[in-house]
Amino acid sequence: MRARNLALVLGEVAGGGPLTRAALAELTGLTKTTVSSLVADLLSAGLVAEAPAARAGERGRPGVEVRLSGEHVAALGLEVNVGYLAACVVDLTGTVRARRTVRADNRASRPEPVLAALHRLADETLADVPSLRIAGAVLAVPGTVGEDRVHHAPHLGWRDVRITDLTDPIRVADRPAAVENEANLAALGELEFGSAPRDFLYVSGETGVGAGLVRDGGLLRGATGLAGELGHVVVADGGPACRCGSRGCLEAYAGQDVLPGPAALAADDPGAAAACARAGRALGLALSSAVNLLDPGAIVLGGRYVPLFPWLAPHVRAVLDERLGALRPAPPVLLPAATGPDAAVLGAAARVLRRVLADPASLG
Amino acid sequence: MRARNLALVLGEVAGGGPLTRAALAELTGLTKTTVSSLVADLLSAGLVAEAPAARAGERGRPGVEVRLSGEHVAALGLEVNVGYLAACVVDLTGTVRARRTVRADNRASRPEPVLAALHRLADETLADVPSLRIAGAVLAVPGTVGEDRVHHAPHLGWRDVRITDLTDPIRVADRPAAVENEANLAALGELEFGSAPRDFLYVSGETGVGAGLVRDGGLLRGATGLAGELGHVVVADGGPACRCGSRGCLEAYAGQDVLPGPAALAADDPGAAAACARAGRALGLALSSAVNLLDPGAIVLGGRYVPLFPWLAPHVRAVLDERLGALRPAPPVLLPAATGPDAAVLGAAARVLRRVLADPASLG
Repeated sequence: MRARNLALVLGEVAGGGPLTRAALAELTGLTKTTVSSLVADLLSAGLVAEAPAARAGERGRPGVEVRLSGEHVAALGLEVNVGYLAACVVDLTGTVRARRTVRADNRASRPEPVLAALHRLADETLADVPSLRIAGAVLAVPGTVGEDRVHHAPHLGWRDVRITDLTDPIRVADRPAAVENEANLAALGELEFGSAPRDFLYVSGETGVGAGLVRDGGLLRGATGLAGELGHVVVADGGPACRCGSRGCLEAYAGQDVLPGPAALAADDPGAAAACARAGRALGLALSSAVNLLDPGAIVLGGRYVPLFPWLAPHVRAVLDERLGALRPAPPVLLPAATGPDAAVLGAAARVLRRVLADPASLG
Repeated sequence: MRARNLALVLGEVAGGGPLTRAALAELTGLTKTTVSSLVADLLSAGLVAEAPAARAGERGRPGVEVRLSGEHVAALGLEVNVGYLAACVVDLTGTVRARRTVRADNRASRPEPVLAALHRLADETLADVPSLRIAGAVLAVPGTVGEDRVHHAPHLGWRDVRITDLTDPIRVADRPAAVENEANLAALGELEFGSAPRDFLYVSGETGVGAGLVRDGGLLRGATGLAGELGHVVVADGGPACRCGSRGCLEAYAGQDVLPGPAALAADDPGAAAACARAGRALGLALSSAVNLLDPGAIVLGGRYVPLFPWLAPHVRAVLDERLGALRPAPPVLLPAATGPDAAVLGAAARVLRRVLADPASLG
């Protein structure tokens, strides 16, 4: 009960702070005595801080307000992707306190050396912020993930890798880093750090193509956590070979390996324009299937699709209009992501912070 | 608060009844006095009934148990489909008390005469059960539906039909019947009256093809209620024309109009076998996209697909294995529905009953 009330008070502070204890009592329905005792616990855990209330127009003696503290608790976000490794530390207020990205060729790699390099990067990043207490770590991987294992990350060439089986797993707060799908975490990153609405399908355009569906501020993960594999939706039966072992998947048409660069498109290169049209049409076809099945409130194109958006979006929109016009009042709006390729590593940290906010008692 | 506690007690009776008042107090955490008072209200509303407890192995004086009552409150399910109209009355215990189906050619029809005929069918069905109080009605329509209107039902030829605008809308308990998508209601029908698990994608194979995703016993409806349009998922860009106005949709390959009959398949007719293989491959392709996006716990083929299941399923399974094998541990299991073509009309009634159980105070 106390754990639930701690979460209740912290949730109000996170959602609407700074707030006085009196305001918190009113919002939560708890007594002022209970709120004061809970706030004392949150203060000593370093989750909140006090500041003098200095709002204009407030009547009576100004009280002391409680806000989230960025000085103590933070989260470690990690990412292995095909062309780079990334780590970031985000504090409880959502401020990025440290971040590092290094180029790396992780194509067809072995997990052990890649994760050892990530471990070093994590240690360096953590060394930048020695005063922060890291509540946990989440690792973004471009592949299908279940529990503590990567089922298949086709571009990395990883299959059935159990992260905790490695000789030196990355451990934070005595627990190994949790693994999650890159696109799901990027969707969360866009939700927390971007400007997207609370109901959208985030499309992650990297070497692989994935998606994460955010509904009412939460992530839709599927029966076994494998929802959102947009990259392997059928574009054409018997189409080009895909890294997943099948054929004609979206990824074979619209993954980074076959996308033109924005410079070539800006220079009106005809080959680049044709490649963009082909990728845009394939993306439109796969997204029309996704809209028919998921009915997202909006579609947000992220990652490598962001700089290509001005050229790619018209092709995508044309297919959505062509295929969806008759069945629904209008296709969902198509937007570029406000976050860039760092959406996933930021989302990984956000995942940890969400857990802290939902269950502050678990911090110990 | 009282409304919520009424729902709490009724929910326990529905989920685990019959139960004594003492057991209900233990399960809900409410006092015995409160439970007794709530049960009195539920008894007078006709939602529950009393029966002497007669269980073997129970210690002490046998009490009186409370169970759902089938004698008073019921729901009206209605359906307009391409080839028939249907109505049913289901009581609170889930027993079908009256049902009628009439053949009708509703292809390219006008809504007014179709709904007038349905109105007569509803009246006849209700006349069979004069002692039951009908708590509400829901109407299943094969098309996209939002709020109180049908956006587009391609096979009926209905577009932007507002049901309450009709001169003589079907009204029950002073409210017009609510409209819902046929496949969503059929999924609910299979959940309540079939043998499916609590987490599955129901595929409704009628003249149109639709789907409803049941997750943890609830229906996933999408941002605007238009999720589950499996029939318009892309099978082949530029494929055969679909009634929706687009091309190459699943429905153009696997709708009832192009499906062979089970008799022809049983007689080893080569044309029928080829049509079945084509439909099965298309269904497999669309379902592989659906599994990649939604990650359902199981796939249940319903409606016209039930009698075809022995011939259709191997083709579908082959594509699912081919396309999904590498990315996930295993494709979801493929099952025939336990309900038949009446899944939607039963689900329509179940929708009303769920509402009564969730908010018994609204009965008035």
